[in-house]
Amino acid sequence: MSKPLRIAVAGLGTVGAGTIRMLADHAELLRQQCGRAVDVVAVSARDRHADRGIDISGARWCDDPLSLAGDTTVDVVVELIGGSDGVALELCRAAIANGKHVVTANKAMLALHGTDLGASADDAGVSLAYEAAVAGGVPIVRALRESLAGNRLHRVYGILNGTGNYILSAMGEQGREFADVLAEAQQLGFAEADPSFDIDGVDAAHKLAILTSVAFACPANFKAVHIEGIREISALDIAYAGELGYRIKLLGIARATLRGIEQRVHPCLVSLDAPIAHVDGVLNAVVAEGDFVDRNMFVGHGAGAGPTASAVVADLVDIARGRLLPAFGIPVSELRELPPSPIAERVGAYYVRLMVVDRPGAIADVTAALRDERISVEAMIQRGRSPEDVVPVVLTTHEAEEAPMCRALAAINRLDQVVEPPRMIRIEDF
Amino acid sequence: MSKPLRIAVAGLGTVGAGTIRMLADHAELLRQQCGRAVDVVAVSARDRHADRGIDISGARWCDDPLSLAGDTTVDVVVELIGGSDGVALELCRAAIANGKHVVTANKAMLALHGTDLGASADDAGVSLAYEAAVAGGVPIVRALRESLAGNRLHRVYGILNGTGNYILSAMGEQGREFADVLAEAQQLGFAEADPSFDIDGVDAAHKLAILTSVAFACPANFKAVHIEGIREISALDIAYAGELGYRIKLLGIARATLRGIEQRVHPCLVSLDAPIAHVDGVLNAVVAEGDFVDRNMFVGHGAGAGPTASAVVADLVDIARGRLLPAFGIPVSELRELPPSPIAERVGAYYVRLMVVDRPGAIADVTAALRDERISVEAMIQRGRSPEDVVPVVLTTHEAEEAPMCRALAAINRLDQVVEPPRMIRIEDF
Repeated sequence: MSKPLRIAVAGLGTVGAGTIRMLADHAELLRQQCGRAVDVVAVSARDRHADRGIDISGARWCDDPLSLAGDTTVDVVVELIGGSDGVALELCRAAIANGKHVVTANKAMLALHGTDLGASADDAGVSLAYEAAVAGGVPIVRALRESLAGNRLHRVYGILNGTGNYILSAMGEQGREFADVLAEAQQLGFAEADPSFDIDGVDAAHKLAILTSVAFACPANFKAVHIEGIREISALDIAYAGELGYRIKLLGIARATLRGIEQRVHPCLVSLDAPIAHVDGVLNAVVAEGDFVDRNMFVGHGAGAGPTASAVVADLVDIARGRLLPAFGIPVSELRELPPSPIAERVGAYYVRLMVVDRPGAIADVTAALRDERISVEAMIQRGRSPEDVVPVVLTTHEAEEAPMCRALAAINRLDQVVEPPRMIRIEDF
Repeated sequence: MSKPLRIAVAGLGTVGAGTIRMLADHAELLRQQCGRAVDVVAVSARDRHADRGIDISGARWCDDPLSLAGDTTVDVVVELIGGSDGVALELCRAAIANGKHVVTANKAMLALHGTDLGASADDAGVSLAYEAAVAGGVPIVRALRESLAGNRLHRVYGILNGTGNYILSAMGEQGREFADVLAEAQQLGFAEADPSFDIDGVDAAHKLAILTSVAFACPANFKAVHIEGIREISALDIAYAGELGYRIKLLGIARATLRGIEQRVHPCLVSLDAPIAHVDGVLNAVVAEGDFVDRNMFVGHGAGAGPTASAVVADLVDIARGRLLPAFGIPVSELRELPPSPIAERVGAYYVRLMVVDRPGAIADVTAALRDERISVEAMIQRGRSPEDVVPVVLTTHEAEEAPMCRALAAINRLDQVVEPPRMIRIEDF
């Protein structure tokens, strides 16, 4: 039996407390799996006396998390403070510089500074592990770095935000509107008081930038992610999508194109034939497509004390077993910059909903605008007749490039009989 | 750059050829990921001159696969011959005894001899890796041993046979009968000429025995698996199940009970609310449930050259990276025998279809037989009236133990108005 692995946990919120509980509850199991004990020797958080339902009496308390970085009794720093910069980043940098392994769940930090941190970890010969940062309990980082090693990946996509998926699922199941379901989710604790990161796609974009880096062996490039959220999705669109055989999901998608790497987060229409269309509620799912494996899908909880702790502990087990790997599978020095492929170059089908004054020729002008950009209509739904009233008209297109599609939508928006900006949602073909 | 990893491939069927193609196509990628080359130095198969669409001119040809075990130029033997005993087993034993790592896709061999082989590998300090043996391209072995390490698992289940899933999916989508779809699957190459292993559940049971060993840290116990196949499933049952909100899937299920470990392979009714219900066609899916992670589902191709090669290569990458682990996560000497929990002790709900002569009191006798065993009916479907004709009657029960359920079914089978043996399918609650 080797010497215990000595860890320090910085941040004792939901995930920190969950991690400490898991290490305590399963100390024997972990000792068996690792061939050594995994001991929490130090902790740090803002409030020493908060009741977290865990026993931290055996660990040294540090008011200053940064002191953990230099602590010679610590082998691994588990950073669960959060925030892209500030103390979290400073702690990780200092810990790595001092030759300590770092395990973190901090997606914002990794999306912005992961490449630099990974390079430092490579230099120091320590592990920078972050399974918990992407899709929480879904072991997608390990899958990309290990299980799919040797595949040339061409696309990685997924439901990367549980709050957003919960809201869309509830809207669909109950026919309710966004604001209504969001308010309920906030009451239930599924959504933050300030829900912007979740529902505007920023959180998913952080995770996508990390996934892209691992999947395509390039430095993370968060700024290149095209981001749209779900505030504009209406119950009407969800109902029409259902009628056409689709679900609406907020997805993060990274794809290798001839020109570089496409990274985008936005609502999508997904065919009911695709298993990911049926991943509902707070669950996350990630799909990886490679040239030999074809397609793998991984589903699980993207957040929460237990699932996130499970991911943190898996990283600790790797370290305890001595199974280290570079943060992105290969050394950061071997990552290659890949040019961003802008959203204007996306090729795919589109769903468009218009609010149109029902009068003769109203639709002819719309289809003419599409034809002028060489975009062909695949299906159209206009129900009943209601002369001179405003009625919804829904259409789907065949594959088209995004730039001409946007020009067509701008032209349609200028039509007198179109009384609201067209609502466009991309259809993804999985 | 370290020395190349030198591998020998025994068996050049679909998977062997796929593996060699993947290693050749992605030699540079693998060199980058492993920090060393992965070279095929020797191959063995029955027919030296078969056209496999791969270039094996750089590898030494060996007529006798067993000679690879003693070959001092070989670091890893990849066993893709198949068969639970015979040459495959002999080769693996000899390779391990000679200090070589073994990678295999041989589920039958592992289900019967995996524990012994794992013990030998532990003793020899080599890797016995078999990601490809369970659900092909679905990286479930790695998930259980690494991603979910530290969780106490309580249930693992899945669609472990693509042929069976293809047949059930096609029956459901097209309303066709089993024999008809099987014949078509055989023509299309999705089913073997002798389909028994696939459709009678034996192949799934092999995989389940291996999964059980990894998930519950016990020696594989294939003989303890209760096995039923899908020959008896009719289009009528699939249609009724759909009406009740279920799909019929052939699942392998391993569960920790108070008495030990339940292992069973049989058709199940799965609620449409469960994502696994929507995994159709030749896809496989495995769900692992643990105390902290809650639930993870992994979906992908369970067979085929590319996906299976992907799994074999992932194991080779692990070895090339020096990331070894005991075959079952912990040393075989630490696995604990767990008593089998027999199917008669299963507790759950049931679907029952009867063919009944439509006459007054016919159903009363049926419900009385259930009541006599304290089993309560949840729902019943009997459509229309057709006096003195035989009509289907479908019912579902609340949770009951299997032993009294079987007694009730025997009593029902003895009723004059019941003209065929009752068709019972277990309802699984996921």
